[in-house]
Amino acid sequence: MPPHFCILGIGQKSITIRKIISGRHYRTIWPTAAGSVRVIDQSRLPFEFSTIDLDTLDDAAQAIRTMVVRGAPLIGATAAYGMALALRSSASNEQLDAAERTLRATRPTAHNLAWALTRMRGALMEVAPSERADAAFREAALICEADVEQCRAIGLHGFEIIRRLANTPGRVVNILTHCNAGWLACVDWGTALSPIYTAHDAGIPVHVWVDETRPRNQGAALTAFELAAHGVPHTVIADNLGGHLMQQGRVDMVIVGSDRITATTELTHITGRTSSGSLETVRVVPEGSPALNLAFDVTPARLVTGLITESGLCSASRAGLQSLYPNR
Amino acid sequence: MPPHFCILGIGQKSITIRKIISGRHYRTIWPTAAGSVRVIDQSRLPFEFSTIDLDTLDDAAQAIRTMVVRGAPLIGATAAYGMALALRSSASNEQLDAAERTLRATRPTAHNLAWALTRMRGALMEVAPSERADAAFREAALICEADVEQCRAIGLHGFEIIRRLANTPGRVVNILTHCNAGWLACVDWGTALSPIYTAHDAGIPVHVWVDETRPRNQGAALTAFELAAHGVPHTVIADNLGGHLMQQGRVDMVIVGSDRITATTELTHITGRTSSGSLETVRVVPEGSPALNLAFDVTPARLVTGLITESGLCSASRAGLQSLYPNR
Repeated sequence: MPPHFCILGIGQKSITIRKIISGRHYRTIWPTAAGSVRVIDQSRLPFEFSTIDLDTLDDAAQAIRTMVVRGAPLIGATAAYGMALALRSSASNEQLDAAERTLRATRPTAHNLAWALTRMRGALMEVAPSERADAAFREAALICEADVEQCRAIGLHGFEIIRRLANTPGRVVNILTHCNAGWLACVDWGTALSPIYTAHDAGIPVHVWVDETRPRNQGAALTAFELAAHGVPHTVIADNLGGHLMQQGRVDMVIVGSDRITATTELTHITGRTSSGSLETVRVVPEGSPALNLAFDVTPARLVTGLITESGLCSASRAGLQSLYPNR
Repeated sequence: MPPHFCILGIGQKSITIRKIISGRHYRTIWPTAAGSVRVIDQSRLPFEFSTIDLDTLDDAAQAIRTMVVRGAPLIGATAAYGMALALRSSASNEQLDAAERTLRATRPTAHNLAWALTRMRGALMEVAPSERADAAFREAALICEADVEQCRAIGLHGFEIIRRLANTPGRVVNILTHCNAGWLACVDWGTALSPIYTAHDAGIPVHVWVDETRPRNQGAALTAFELAAHGVPHTVIADNLGGHLMQQGRVDMVIVGSDRITATTELTHITGRTSSGSLETVRVVPEGSPALNLAFDVTPARLVTGLITESGLCSASRAGLQSLYPNR
C-alpha cells in the first residue's frame, strides 16, 4: 500500500506540508520501539503537528477525554492500547476489570470504545495473566489493522461511485463533506474521505466542499488539514452554504461519516452531547445569551441515497442493510 | 409607542444591559441638535456599545462601506441622511448628482439604498437649491418614520401568528431565526424580530433559537444582543442544529428576513457576494485551504409557509403577493 499522507519539515510551531512521493507515512496511533504508544495530538491541529507518547492507562484515558484523539475508530484503537498499557504492571483479572471501567468511563456513549474493550476482554480472558500484556499489544495491533483494512475497503467501494460521476474526461467531481471522517478519525485512510483519497490517487479530478462544522470546527481544522496535506483540491465553506451550492448544481455528491445507522427512520430523538469547555461561541455571544451545542444529529433515510460500507454499497433501508449483513 | 429597547449604564468599553422600566430608547440613526447624524457603531457590537457622528457625505459613505451600519432599511436611511449632509455645503444639481453617485457606489447591490436615493432625488429636484438642504433632512426623517411604521405593522401582523401558536396558557412558543433582521438592521423594531418583540411585550412566553449565522456571526453577535437587551429568552445555536431541533418538535415557527421576494420559484442562480476582509474562517483553516463566503442564499417558496408584510399576511406565491400588492 503506497503512503497516502506524508509530512516533511516538521518544525516546533509550524509545519510545512507537501504532497510527496517519498517521505514519512503517518498513522494516527502506533506502538514505539521503546514500548510506548504514540498518537498525533489532534487538539493542536491544524496549527501545530506534534505527537504524544502514552505510557500508562491514565495517559490513554486522558488522551480520549481531552480529545487529543477523537473519531470513533481511533477512540476504539486508543482504548485497546490503553488496556495493553494497563496490563504491563499487573495483568490480574482485577486489573483488567479496573482498566476496562476507567476506559469505558472516558466516553460512555462511544460505540467503538465499548466494542474494542469487549473484544480485548474476550481475547485476554483466554490467556494466562503472565502472557496477557503481550497478548493485549498484539490484539490492539490487530484491531488497528482491521480498521485500516475496513477503511481501505470503504474507499474502494465508494471510489466506484465517484468514478461513475466522472463520466466526462477532465470533469471535476464536486463532493461535499461535513465534520471529519478522514484518516485522523481512524487509524488510516478514513471512512467518508477514503473514497476521495482513492479517487484522487487514481487520477480522477475531485474538489471537496469542506463544511467548517460548527461548533467545534472539525471540518475547517481537521478535514482541510488532511486534504491540504494530501494535495486534494478543496474549499472551506460555512455549514449553511451547502444548500445554496446544491441549488446551483455545484455539488455532485455528499459523503459523510455515520456514527450509527438504524434499520428504521422513525426516529424523533437521539442522544445529544453538550460540549464541555466552551469555546468560540461564547466569545461572540453577548453576556446572558445561553448557547446550545449538540454534537450529533440524525439524517433521515429519505435524504440518503446509499450507504458505503466495508462490505459494499447498499440502499439506506432495512432491505439494503440486510443484503450486506444478513446475519444481523 | 412605548420604548421597546433601552440601555442603562453605558461605559466606555463595556455595557450593562437591563430589561428596563425607565431609561433611554434608542433608534439606530437620528439627527442631533448640533446638525450631525448619529448612528450606533454596529461593527463593535456586542462587545462595545458606542455611537458615531456623521458630519459629511464621506462620513456617511464610509459608515455604509465599513458596516458601521448594516441591514437593508438602515443602509437606505443612512444614504438619505448622507445626501442631506452633502447638500449643506452646496446644493447644486451637480453636487446632488455627485452625492448620489458616491452613495450608490458604497453598496451597488443594495435595493433599499437605490430606492432611498431615488426618492431623495425626486423630492429634491422639485425644490430650489437654496432650500434643498433643509428639505433633504426632512425627507430623510420621513424615510426613517416610514420604516418604523412599516416595521411596527409587520410586528402586528406577525404577532397574530404567534398568538395563534400560543393556544395553551403558559405554553412557550419556540421561534427560530437566522442572521439579524431586528431593530439594529432597521431604524426601529426590526422586520423578522418585530413580531417577536410585539408578542413578548404582550406577555406571550416566547423563546428564540438564534442561529449564530456564519460566516459573519450576525446572529450570535447582533440578534442575541438585541434579544438580551430587551429581555427576550433565547439560546444561540450552530446554524446546522436547526434541522435537529425541528425533528425533535422543538421549533414552532421560523421567522427570517427576506432581502428580495420573487413571484416565481424557478431560480437556479442568485447574486452572491464574497465577503471582503476575512475573518474567523481564515484563522481556523490550515494554510492553502481556500474559503468561499457567500452572504446570501435562496429559500425555495415550497419551504415558506407564508409572508409577513407591512400590508398583512399572504402565501408565498404569485397569487399571495398579488392579493396584497395588486398594482405591482
